[in-house]
Amino acid sequence: MALIVQKFGGSSVKDAERVMNVAKIVTDTYSNGNDVIVVVSAQGDTTDNLISKAMEINQKPSTREMDMLLSAGEQISIALLSMAIEKLGFPVISLLGWQAGFTTNSVYSAARIKFIKPDRLRSEIGKKNIVIVAGFQGVNKYDDITTLGRGGSDTSAVAIAAALRADRCQIFTDVEGVFTADPRKIPGARKLQEITYDEMLELSTLGAQVLNNRSVETAKKYGVEIEVLSSYNRIPGTIVKEVTSMEKMLVRGVTKDTDVARITIMDVPDVPGIAFKIFSRLATRKINVDIILQSVGRGGKKDIAFTINKSAKNAAMEALGNSFSELQNTKIECDTNVAKVSVVGAGMESHPGTASKMFEALYEIDVNIQMISTSEIKISVLIDINDADRAVAAIHRAFLPEE
Amino acid sequence: MALIVQKFGGSSVKDAERVMNVAKIVTDTYSNGNDVIVVVSAQGDTTDNLISKAMEINQKPSTREMDMLLSAGEQISIALLSMAIEKLGFPVISLLGWQAGFTTNSVYSAARIKFIKPDRLRSEIGKKNIVIVAGFQGVNKYDDITTLGRGGSDTSAVAIAAALRADRCQIFTDVEGVFTADPRKIPGARKLQEITYDEMLELSTLGAQVLNNRSVETAKKYGVEIEVLSSYNRIPGTIVKEVTSMEKMLVRGVTKDTDVARITIMDVPDVPGIAFKIFSRLATRKINVDIILQSVGRGGKKDIAFTINKSAKNAAMEALGNSFSELQNTKIECDTNVAKVSVVGAGMESHPGTASKMFEALYEIDVNIQMISTSEIKISVLIDINDADRAVAAIHRAFLPEE
Repeated sequence: MALIVQKFGGSSVKDAERVMNVAKIVTDTYSNGNDVIVVVSAQGDTTDNLISKAMEINQKPSTREMDMLLSAGEQISIALLSMAIEKLGFPVISLLGWQAGFTTNSVYSAARIKFIKPDRLRSEIGKKNIVIVAGFQGVNKYDDITTLGRGGSDTSAVAIAAALRADRCQIFTDVEGVFTADPRKIPGARKLQEITYDEMLELSTLGAQVLNNRSVETAKKYGVEIEVLSSYNRIPGTIVKEVTSMEKMLVRGVTKDTDVARITIMDVPDVPGIAFKIFSRLATRKINVDIILQSVGRGGKKDIAFTINKSAKNAAMEALGNSFSELQNTKIECDTNVAKVSVVGAGMESHPGTASKMFEALYEIDVNIQMISTSEIKISVLIDINDADRAVAAIHRAFLPEE
Repeated sequence: MALIVQKFGGSSVKDAERVMNVAKIVTDTYSNGNDVIVVVSAQGDTTDNLISKAMEINQKPSTREMDMLLSAGEQISIALLSMAIEKLGFPVISLLGWQAGFTTNSVYSAARIKFIKPDRLRSEIGKKNIVIVAGFQGVNKYDDITTLGRGGSDTSAVAIAAALRADRCQIFTDVEGVFTADPRKIPGARKLQEITYDEMLELSTLGAQVLNNRSVETAKKYGVEIEVLSSYNRIPGTIVKEVTSMEKMLVRGVTKDTDVARITIMDVPDVPGIAFKIFSRLATRKINVDIILQSVGRGGKKDIAFTINKSAKNAAMEALGNSFSELQNTKIECDTNVAKVSVVGAGMESHPGTASKMFEALYEIDVNIQMISTSEIKISVLIDINDADRAVAAIHRAFLPEE
């Protein structure tokens, strides 16, 4: 007998039929002798519908009232899923975020979980109830409702698994697990049996929209074993855990991120402190900088280029535009026709051949590399956005040939 | 400066435009220097939509989960109304039932308010916030959400007014106040300026769907002055309070109730205890009996007739059908083609002419009276349902002629 936390997203409970499907998965797990806590998101379009109701009335509502509004979505889905489980004849109880003991900070719409008071969860499990918990929401010290922001339900599930030392946290999605590349686009893409937290973090940062980053960080911190699997069929998914068994594969996946912009500042005076001035200006505006490239100084001048998220483009240009004296004779350009393509895999740093193999694959299909960035477990290149899909396919072929 | 509680029903907040209208009423009241607490119901069809979502999944969900589901409706409307008030530039905060301190018993779907812990409400009023409270809902001692049942939002509003000793509790509806009869049907019907709690209770029991009975009872108990008025225009409504000023009118209104069935048991043995046996059987099934009529015994037999709510018809017939020995040779009939028409007005008992005036009005239009029931402040007659509208018009003409 184990304690299993299961999380189902909005598409998994979008209508009565899908809700009954989830009820079946949950009660099967319970019938196999497990204690089960289920975390659910709002049904399909509920959140979008609520947002448009709000926008009709007020384009800039306070985040507190937005959280009050949106948290009603999960309230509806937990009640409906509980009713479905009642219908199947199993003991069940639904709990809102505050009832399940989720205490967060007070950053409405992007709150962080401070702790979970697990008393109520424990007591319901003790009564042999299947417990259905509203994901994405908690309560702050003022007794006001907060939401965790995008992907928050994943974090809710992992946090419960951590607080109650669950044996496993299953995240049900509409894909069968974590793949070496997007299976809809790369024919040889295949499902991984296991992956480490760090690899998962790199993969999800890089655009594999399977698991929310914060949930993986939380899982890593508390050693929660996650399984990513599909709610559409009953086959094993991908396990995310600290140390995975040895597999032949060195490279775990190839990803592409087109939500990126490159800013280049040309002819920057080659004096101390200039990089600090530029990047502190971006930092105070909370703009995350990813790859940074600085040319070797030449004739008292150098070029600095960096990538940011596309959505931060205007803010970044503004921050630099009406800026400090050193930038007055420079030329600042922003290019959004770029994509970041990466290979991810633990142990990469001890295999010097990885980078050259990647570059060779790109060379063979005549793709020009604009920037390069490496870490212990990934190598990323910035290329023209029109080359991105071809590049992913070529790199995937090179590292993960079809078996 | 006064503390005013305002309650708006579902049709008053059914869409963005109506929500903005309510926001205007509320902020005008606030701008006039008043503290304002607003109680809102769920938007228009929300409750019905949620119920049909539930029915798709489970025809007989537990009442606990039903309360979890339905209370999301008010959560949505308080957030939207708060956003509308933010839009108008006023300080506002929304509170759920449990946040506003509503503690109820544990009868899910029909909970009774035990007390209100007014700390949070007081503190928000102290900060000069307009406070928007979710009606219809509370929390029980297990920290589970409960709902107050039909018309519960009126009760929520009155309970807040009582707990905070508000100067007035305004119930906004889609009619302009309490009328002497249904103004859509009776040309001479007119709005009352004032009415007592008892009169209001009789009127609402009798089918004038203006105020929920429990809210009037609570208002009477705590001496809360209620004003019933329209959210569509800005004219004074009807004040409900303990002692009203002397008005010429003795009769406050004429009402009709067609949601009634009459059960007649003929040839009942005229022995002691028979009435007790019949009505205790109905009582154990929680069937409310209204008018009771027993004929004078004759030849060791008598007839017993009584009225009940139409919806209890089958339960009542069942309760009596396979019943005790004394009823075995009787004939039991149920007639649903009946209507109860009543005149209501305090001080009626000291005016013996009232009853005869009513009967005369019915005689003149040739309406047969099947049963009669009188109390201190009303006289009701049971007549054929097809005569009901004519009867109300004739009685209204007799007591409240057009001026």
